[in-house]
Amino acid sequence: MELPSKYLENAVNEISKLPGIGRKTALRLALFLLKSPPQNSLNLAESLTHLVQHTQFCKRCHNLSDLEICGICSNPKRDAGLICVVEDVRDVLAVENTNLFRGHYHVLGGLISPMEGIGPSQLKLESLFEKAGQPDTHEIILALNATMEGDTTNFYIYRRLQNTPIKISTFARGLAVGDQLEYTDEVTLGRSLLNRIPFEQSMKN
Amino acid sequence: MELPSKYLENAVNEISKLPGIGRKTALRLALFLLKSPPQNSLNLAESLTHLVQHTQFCKRCHNLSDLEICGICSNPKRDAGLICVVEDVRDVLAVENTNLFRGHYHVLGGLISPMEGIGPSQLKLESLFEKAGQPDTHEIILALNATMEGDTTNFYIYRRLQNTPIKISTFARGLAVGDQLEYTDEVTLGRSLLNRIPFEQSMKN
Repeated sequence: MELPSKYLENAVNEISKLPGIGRKTALRLALFLLKSPPQNSLNLAESLTHLVQHTQFCKRCHNLSDLEICGICSNPKRDAGLICVVEDVRDVLAVENTNLFRGHYHVLGGLISPMEGIGPSQLKLESLFEKAGQPDTHEIILALNATMEGDTTNFYIYRRLQNTPIKISTFARGLAVGDQLEYTDEVTLGRSLLNRIPFEQSMKN
Repeated sequence: MELPSKYLENAVNEISKLPGIGRKTALRLALFLLKSPPQNSLNLAESLTHLVQHTQFCKRCHNLSDLEICGICSNPKRDAGLICVVEDVRDVLAVENTNLFRGHYHVLGGLISPMEGIGPSQLKLESLFEKAGQPDTHEIILALNATMEGDTTNFYIYRRLQNTPIKISTFARGLAVGDQLEYTDEVTLGRSLLNRIPFEQSMKN
C-alpha cells in the first residue's frame, strides 16, 4: 500500500509503532487528524514532546511525578513504614482507587524476566532493600501480578528480606465481591477455601 | 483516576481524543512512550506536526499529495477521461491496489449527509461537474460506499450528469471471489443473479 504523501507515510509509520496499532488503524488515525483542525494535531504533538521531556520519576518511590518527591511520598499523613511494591504506575492508580491504602509505594518499573533478559539489576530493587533496612519500615506488601514473572520477582524479594524482622504480606486471592460460586474457576475457589477467614472479619470489611 | 503527573494527564487527554481510543488505552500508549527511548516520541510528535503542516491536496483530484498535482493526475499514461469518484484517500488506495484501474480519481472528501449537516456545497462536487464538461471526459465511475449517504451522493451526481453524453457506471455488486452460495446474504445473491454475466466474460477476468 503506497501512500500518496511522504508526510502521511511517515506519520503512519510512526503511529503504527505504538502497541496494538497496525498500519490500517494508523492510517485511519492519520486521516482523522488531517480532517480535524490542525491545532488538534499540534496539541497532540506538543503533549507527547512534553511528556518525554518533562516527566520525571519520584526519587523515593520511582513513580511518575512532576516533582522530585511525589505527592504520595511527601504526604505526612501517610505511613512511610508500610510499603506496597508494584510493577508500574498503573498498579499505583489501581490501589489508590480503592481509597484503602495509606502507606507508600515502591514502583519496580518491571518484573524479573529471564525470557526478556530483564534481571534484578535492571529493576529498582536495591533502593527497596535500602528502605527495608531503615528502622521505621515495618511491613512490605508484595502487590505484583500473579504471572510467572511476578511470582519470580515476589520470591526474589522474599528471599532477600526473609531474615529481617519486616512483615512481608501479599494481597488476598479469592472470590471477587459479587462473584457466584458456580462460575468461579476451581483454582480461585480452592484457594478461597484454604485461606478462609472468620465470618466476623468479613462483616467488618 | 487522578494521574500523578500533569504532563501524563495532558498526553492522555490528547491521545484519547483520537477515534476508538479511550482513556485506558491512551494511558497504556502514553506509558509505552515513556518506557521507550524519548526519540521515539519526538519522532512521532514531529511526524504529526509535519503531517498537518505540509500535506496538501492535489488541485485536480483533491487526493492527498506532496505536490500541487499528484502523481496519478500527472501520469501521462493514465486516461484523464475516465474518472473514478470516491469518498476519501482510503478508497483511492483500495482501487489502486487492484492494479486494474488506469484512469484518474476524484476525491469528494465526504458524502452528502443531511443528518450531519453536510450538503453538496461542502464536497468537491463543482470541480467534478467542471471536469465532466470537458470534451475528453467519457466515463465517470461512481465508487461510493453503498450506504444511505453514498447512495444519496451517487444519485445527486447522476441527476446532474444524466443529460450529458458521459457514460455513468458503478462497481458490480455480487459474490466475492471465493464466496460460497450457502453463506452469502440473500440481497447480494439476488443481485448477483439479476446482474448475471456471460460465462465467457467471467473466464476472461
